[in-house]
Amino acid sequence: MRKLILLAATALTLSASAAAAQDLSATAAQLRDKALADTTAWTVTEQLTTDIGSRMVGSEGMVRARDWAVATFKRYGFENIKVESFKTPAWSRGAESAEVVGPTPHKLHILGLGGSAPTPPGGLTAEVMVFKTYQAMLDQPEGALTGKIAVVTQAMPRTQDISSYGLTGVQRRAGAGEAARRGAVGYLVRSLSTDDTRLPHTGGGSRAGIPSAALSPPDAELLERLAERKKPVTVRLQMESSFNPAADAWNISGEIRGTGKTADEVIVIGGHLDSWDPGTGAIDDASGIGITLAAAKLAAQPGKPKRTVRVVMWGSEEQGGSSGAYLEAHRAELPKLVVAGESDLGAGKIFSINLPGGSLDHPAMKAFRSTLPALGVLVTREPASSGGSDISGIVGAGVPVVDFNQDASRYFDLHHSADDTLDKIDPKELAQNVAVWTSFLYTVANSDIDFRALAAASPK
Amino acid sequence: MRKLILLAATALTLSASAAAAQDLSATAAQLRDKALADTTAWTVTEQLTTDIGSRMVGSEGMVRARDWAVATFKRYGFENIKVESFKTPAWSRGAESAEVVGPTPHKLHILGLGGSAPTPPGGLTAEVMVFKTYQAMLDQPEGALTGKIAVVTQAMPRTQDISSYGLTGVQRRAGAGEAARRGAVGYLVRSLSTDDTRLPHTGGGSRAGIPSAALSPPDAELLERLAERKKPVTVRLQMESSFNPAADAWNISGEIRGTGKTADEVIVIGGHLDSWDPGTGAIDDASGIGITLAAAKLAAQPGKPKRTVRVVMWGSEEQGGSSGAYLEAHRAELPKLVVAGESDLGAGKIFSINLPGGSLDHPAMKAFRSTLPALGVLVTREPASSGGSDISGIVGAGVPVVDFNQDASRYFDLHHSADDTLDKIDPKELAQNVAVWTSFLYTVANSDIDFRALAAASPK
Repeated sequence: MRKLILLAATALTLSASAAAAQDLSATAAQLRDKALADTTAWTVTEQLTTDIGSRMVGSEGMVRARDWAVATFKRYGFENIKVESFKTPAWSRGAESAEVVGPTPHKLHILGLGGSAPTPPGGLTAEVMVFKTYQAMLDQPEGALTGKIAVVTQAMPRTQDISSYGLTGVQRRAGAGEAARRGAVGYLVRSLSTDDTRLPHTGGGSRAGIPSAALSPPDAELLERLAERKKPVTVRLQMESSFNPAADAWNISGEIRGTGKTADEVIVIGGHLDSWDPGTGAIDDASGIGITLAAAKLAAQPGKPKRTVRVVMWGSEEQGGSSGAYLEAHRAELPKLVVAGESDLGAGKIFSINLPGGSLDHPAMKAFRSTLPALGVLVTREPASSGGSDISGIVGAGVPVVDFNQDASRYFDLHHSADDTLDKIDPKELAQNVAVWTSFLYTVANSDIDFRALAAASPK
Repeated sequence: MRKLILLAATALTLSASAAAAQDLSATAAQLRDKALADTTAWTVTEQLTTDIGSRMVGSEGMVRARDWAVATFKRYGFENIKVESFKTPAWSRGAESAEVVGPTPHKLHILGLGGSAPTPPGGLTAEVMVFKTYQAMLDQPEGALTGKIAVVTQAMPRTQDISSYGLTGVQRRAGAGEAARRGAVGYLVRSLSTDDTRLPHTGGGSRAGIPSAALSPPDAELLERLAERKKPVTVRLQMESSFNPAADAWNISGEIRGTGKTADEVIVIGGHLDSWDPGTGAIDDASGIGITLAAAKLAAQPGKPKRTVRVVMWGSEEQGGSSGAYLEAHRAELPKLVVAGESDLGAGKIFSINLPGGSLDHPAMKAFRSTLPALGVLVTREPASSGGSDISGIVGAGVPVVDFNQDASRYFDLHHSADDTLDKIDPKELAQNVAVWTSFLYTVANSDIDFRALAAASPK
């Protein structure tokens, strides 16, 4: 008898759960379609790029961006708005120029890399040594580059995902250090760019004590051709820059508060507010802020969610600092952070997703997944792992993570260059991102899915 | 009897002519195929862009280019090499910068237009008036722009031929004059560009006494958006430049001399040696020089042609002067110039041709035309008319002209910008151009086709 009652109760529970999943799924689909027609993400992205523009950590632009962030959260009705201060190292660009002085004068298009040393006043003139691969430079013994400007011209291939950046990134990040170790007095590297314009792409380099800069792809190829002439090629570099070891920075957040006793369960999403300086930080990462803010608003349209949705605008992704600062400030609430996600790969369409391990077949995730085929999104069986730079701290500390993989085919045409501007964003592709995030937020915030427990229960 | 003999003679002549046409056609086809595999045009283009680089009229680069031209003609075995000096006005760029100073600071990417006045020392700061069409500015009455920087943001559409440049060019060429007439103190115009990079495109403007510059397309769109905020938008311009009313310039030519008494019948082809300064003048117009020089060499491979083929590297196309100077220096030989052609629309494939009026069915042109289907080239029935800037003087004086219409779909992505560099040239498309020119040169230089007589005999 007791068994029968239990069975009936289970059936009732299952049926209620199935009905709830059905509801989640139907509402998520409605929200998805609403998101495709919603312009909030575009408006936010337009305003941040137009009314603020570039916003390097440590700059006046970043101070304006902070105030814009607070005002924007207020305008969209977010609650519990917080400005969390932290200190972080900040490199700042000064005047820069480079030119081939012999055998033929050519102006070079460069952008100093974050962390570069300035040249001596009056500049630095030296012969170049051109390496067509990064490995060819690494193969040089110590002292082999003494007095030279090392030049690495290896090209970044175009890939749909971020893998080529992972594979070629080292020549920008570590090249100056490796060159300096071998005696070089300067380092020039072909931009991590898949485009062929004369616009160089900056990014974090190494604080190796020598000037280092990115060359536009055509300039890298010019240096290759000049080097093939077998006559000495001399370059003059002039770079000013400054470095602040402890600049002011801010992680800024706003919430859609959950209801009742689940209000302290928090879904953390966002993008980063800082940018490099040559563009207006449209795809990197105004769009990520626009996408996540819009999705949070849309997900709350059927009514307050059960769980809290928090949107964070991280304050120092490009030069590092946000992630560690966020972890430190939120250690106490880590067990209450349900899941974290970051949108930081531009505004290209999401083509696949990775969910936290073991969660694929949970009713909430089945409801979410049911909304994806109409968006052209594939569900990968491999669990999410990275999530994004700014959440790497909390994810490393055990917070479950989700990866929404955007098509990055064009991302590295623009990334960290003067071409990172609003006009490069396709509003339809932007809206597709919002639709995916909205559906995810809605289904997670209105269920009791426990990603940690599911991961623990799933086979490794 | 006399009639019969005449008939037989005519038949013999026709038959000889048909056989000759057959020979022309077969050899032209062989040369076409040789040209497709020939690398001369690439080599010449590579050297001019790499060993010389940018070459504004009046600059040191142009002096180096002149010497390179003579050395190149010698290296390729050209005869009768001539350096014809002339004087021409030359505008030179100095330091330039522009920025929005309010309501939000934004660095603008500009390039001064040829003929621009410098700003006062220390720069010029003024409110902008943004016009989304050129006509909207023209519709303003005199005085309406007093004290303002006029901004025209009309975009250039992409077309396969040069028509969009013809239709939108006036906003660059004449805009500063029209703005000044209405009281403006400066003029900014959206670049005549079909690309969306931050690289502005320069070009000839008007000597209207006010500073004038081209904006990159994203910067033009930023100013549009800022203007839509309905708050005053203030821009600071700083431009240095200088103007030489009588700079030294040179038209440089070399010949493949014809044989015997037809050696004084001359086919004039070429490209222009000067370039704007931001790029290395690869598609504008090193490629035209490479194409025509290579074609002249290839056309002489079966043996010396009957007529002379002259390749000219004109010395001041961008700021004007070559065409008039060439006409003046060659007035006496105009009747002996068989036909003229210029390659000055980049290195994109030739997709159609216009021949001189009435010549389509001449055996020489039939032989030429028989080589074109394999190259994907259409023959237009409309007679050629323009030919190119540098030959407009001699063409206006009655020299027959040919138009080989290149696909310019990508040309205005690059034209007059820092992106005009060697890497943008597809060697296969370059070689297709050489093949068309080679076939044409061979058939015309080895026939007695008289384009003037054919045009005179053809119905208008």
